[in-house]
Amino acid sequence: MEEQAEMVGRAFVDHYYHLFDTDRASLSSLYQPSSMLSFEGQKLFGANDISSKLNQLPFDQCKHLISTIDSQPSSPSGGIVVFVSGSLQLPGEEYHLRFSQMFHLIPTPEGTFFVQNDIFRLNYG
Amino acid sequence: MEEQAEMVGRAFVDHYYHLFDTDRASLSSLYQPSSMLSFEGQKLFGANDISSKLNQLPFDQCKHLISTIDSQPSSPSGGIVVFVSGSLQLPGEEYHLRFSQMFHLIPTPEGTFFVQNDIFRLNYG
Repeated sequence: MEEQAEMVGRAFVDHYYHLFDTDRASLSSLYQPSSMLSFEGQKLFGANDISSKLNQLPFDQCKHLISTIDSQPSSPSGGIVVFVSGSLQLPGEEYHLRFSQMFHLIPTPEGTFFVQNDIFRLNYG
Repeated sequence: MEEQAEMVGRAFVDHYYHLFDTDRASLSSLYQPSSMLSFEGQKLFGANDISSKLNQLPFDQCKHLISTIDSQPSSPSGGIVVFVSGSLQLPGEEYHLRFSQMFHLIPTPEGTFFVQNDIFRLNYG
């Protein structure tokens, strides 16, 4: 179960940030009405509001570079927690922004996963 | 439910780091046999091994300073995910170590919570 969590976590992270960097609007398909996002302390509820927030961030292009991925099974029913650290590169900015983010993934009846919990923080200091 | 998650998250974080900084051995009571810890990529399973790891860290005294706490309900059955950022001060060290940590808390029949998932990373860069 631990190995599967690691595999799912890595595959999810690849997929998520690839979509974020190339087709951000399609991230909405990874969330559901019950999903929550805390973005730098701001709370958003449901796939629609979360998608709006992500698509209204004040940059059009970006590139995520991933440093670490830690994944664990969160429950006997197949949930997985994924913890990511990395950096965000914005066009025209010399320095990367370091960030940490966690996802709680829940299995769907179709055999995929959706994001129930998403918490994002830039690392200052 | 969101407000309760915030309250529980803040109370847990206060309690956890207070114990860590003043009576580290007693942290074992917050974990159960099913608990998991990923500490800088090293995985530990169960309250005993987790407690051993925490008590064998290469410093006796430390002080955690908390910068941000984000909490969300993780499931309809009362679980809570808590995401923490802060810094760790070690005796004799001029600089603080920045860290991020997440906890997945599960309610117990006694009305408290235990740590099912714990992922800790120092923030470099």
